[in-house]
Amino acid sequence: MAIRSFLSIAAIGSPANNPVSQDDIMALMTAITGWTPDGWIERFQSAVGDIPFIDPRKPYDREKVLWVAAWKPEPGLLATLPNLQAIFNLGAGVDALLVDPKLPNVPIVRIVDENLTRRMTEYVVGHVLAQHRMFDVYAAAQRERIWLTRYQPAASDVRVGIMGMGVLGRDAAEVLVRLGFQVAGWSRRGEPMAGVETFAGSAGFKPFLARTDILICLLPLTPDTRCILNIDLFRALPKSGPLGGPVVINAGRGGHQVAEDVVRALEEGSLRSAVLDVFEVEPLPYDSPLWSHPGITVTPHNAADSDPAHLCRYVLAQIDRLRAGKPLINVVDRKLGY
Amino acid sequence: MAIRSFLSIAAIGSPANNPVSQDDIMALMTAITGWTPDGWIERFQSAVGDIPFIDPRKPYDREKVLWVAAWKPEPGLLATLPNLQAIFNLGAGVDALLVDPKLPNVPIVRIVDENLTRRMTEYVVGHVLAQHRMFDVYAAAQRERIWLTRYQPAASDVRVGIMGMGVLGRDAAEVLVRLGFQVAGWSRRGEPMAGVETFAGSAGFKPFLARTDILICLLPLTPDTRCILNIDLFRALPKSGPLGGPVVINAGRGGHQVAEDVVRALEEGSLRSAVLDVFEVEPLPYDSPLWSHPGITVTPHNAADSDPAHLCRYVLAQIDRLRAGKPLINVVDRKLGY
Repeated sequence: MAIRSFLSIAAIGSPANNPVSQDDIMALMTAITGWTPDGWIERFQSAVGDIPFIDPRKPYDREKVLWVAAWKPEPGLLATLPNLQAIFNLGAGVDALLVDPKLPNVPIVRIVDENLTRRMTEYVVGHVLAQHRMFDVYAAAQRERIWLTRYQPAASDVRVGIMGMGVLGRDAAEVLVRLGFQVAGWSRRGEPMAGVETFAGSAGFKPFLARTDILICLLPLTPDTRCILNIDLFRALPKSGPLGGPVVINAGRGGHQVAEDVVRALEEGSLRSAVLDVFEVEPLPYDSPLWSHPGITVTPHNAADSDPAHLCRYVLAQIDRLRAGKPLINVVDRKLGY
Repeated sequence: MAIRSFLSIAAIGSPANNPVSQDDIMALMTAITGWTPDGWIERFQSAVGDIPFIDPRKPYDREKVLWVAAWKPEPGLLATLPNLQAIFNLGAGVDALLVDPKLPNVPIVRIVDENLTRRMTEYVVGHVLAQHRMFDVYAAAQRERIWLTRYQPAASDVRVGIMGMGVLGRDAAEVLVRLGFQVAGWSRRGEPMAGVETFAGSAGFKPFLARTDILICLLPLTPDTRCILNIDLFRALPKSGPLGGPVVINAGRGGHQVAEDVVRALEEGSLRSAVLDVFEVEPLPYDSPLWSHPGITVTPHNAADSDPAHLCRYVLAQIDRLRAGKPLINVVDRKLGY
């Protein structure tokens, strides 16, 4: 999808049979489910400055909505906004938007926020080190009051593989390289990165897995990547690595993993452990076997909770860009799904 | 202590009444307790090349020992070696050597090894992130099958303070700065470092503590630093920080901490948690209350287990330097104790 300036968007977006002045339609609205919408509405209300804001909890004129700040909006809702010009997705992944069959054909902007990136790197690096240095093994020894002396591989002995080398993957890779890990990245195009071995597309997939002791999923969720963390992938990881078995860390989307296959791989020894931040159904249901499996670390989709104030500022800065005649940035390519 | 070249050392070291040729006395010996000595002896034996090596398990001529690779050598032993020229301490801290009242007045070389430095940074960064991102809180929630949503401070909200800004402290600081933490260092001289707020000596101590949420001890153990981690220090850390209380991580020496004070500080709320890798008595005795306190993480003095092969190469490389007439590097200043 081409990046278009505000002026051309406005020209395209105002149907001739529905003449409205720019001032009338220049309003931002939130469309949020899943999260508590009230806080977001108040946050935008207090931060919009001279950008008109529509509170979706009150009756409103659908023709006046030019921009929507969205998180899992009610399917079909966006199609009822005739003058909609851009959708600002309040998260890094737009998969929840793209499943709306009536999604209007306007630019979708995804969040690329330094705060979100840093939070993800904290999570990824923290869990890679916890797995590499086997915090679980030493915690178990502590419970038994055992002074455990055993060989610990150095970071330089451990091969970390990152699936998805966008802004998030590259930032985590940079820190992991600095720590001394052997880092590889797998992505569609396999763009080079200093200190990182890169693998591209389907041809690079098996070789990438064959050299990976700790696998990190930071992919966007698309038809191509759904269920990519399945038993075949787990079995393609090297069993004889320095950690006594491969580790998978999924901070992408729940749809990337086949939950039964994670359990199966742990049971049969294809995996040593799994760190899962995301699940097909969230919150993870009380009766899910993932909660209690000793090889699984469950975190409540909080790898990269971005600061709402940052996201709000990001959306408003992009709207300011539009109003100044500048193009949107970080526009989603719908064909690729990210 | 001045760094002297091998030739001048040899000249000083050969008493006139005990004439020996250089070839006769150029032998290396190991003097190790605490660790299993056999593996070290075999490792040196197979790596020394043309450097004569003395196996201390067999009878040997004390006059022939020119160099000793030592770890907690039997007190008094080194004083019985009349031609001893240098002691290579097989660890970063020389406190166990300096307690020998008969320690001969020859240069002591400490280990500065990239492998050891990297291992320490892995440990420090891993435990800082585990505390910052509260892995313990989420593990407890997982055991109860609770999808816990709560505020998580960003690294940029968290103030890490490193006591001891030598090679180890500076390396950890560099990675923590990259992760976004507010990092400060406290040392005798307070030498500046990019991105790090530095505090010096006793004047800088209280201000350093007052701004520190996660305190890391990487000090050498000297009379000045013994028992520095005591109740007064814990009470000087800010209670109102972003983690709900201060955290201390001790990867220095057991002698730095007053174990009862750690427990007391946790009980009274002056500390949120403590990560201890070192103890006054190691292995930590079975009946120590540190094992079972919910606020304490015990690791078995393995923060920076260096690869023995690296240490061996380091010692032999320094002996090669001496033989080539070059000065020793990383010689300990006995007055400072490190």
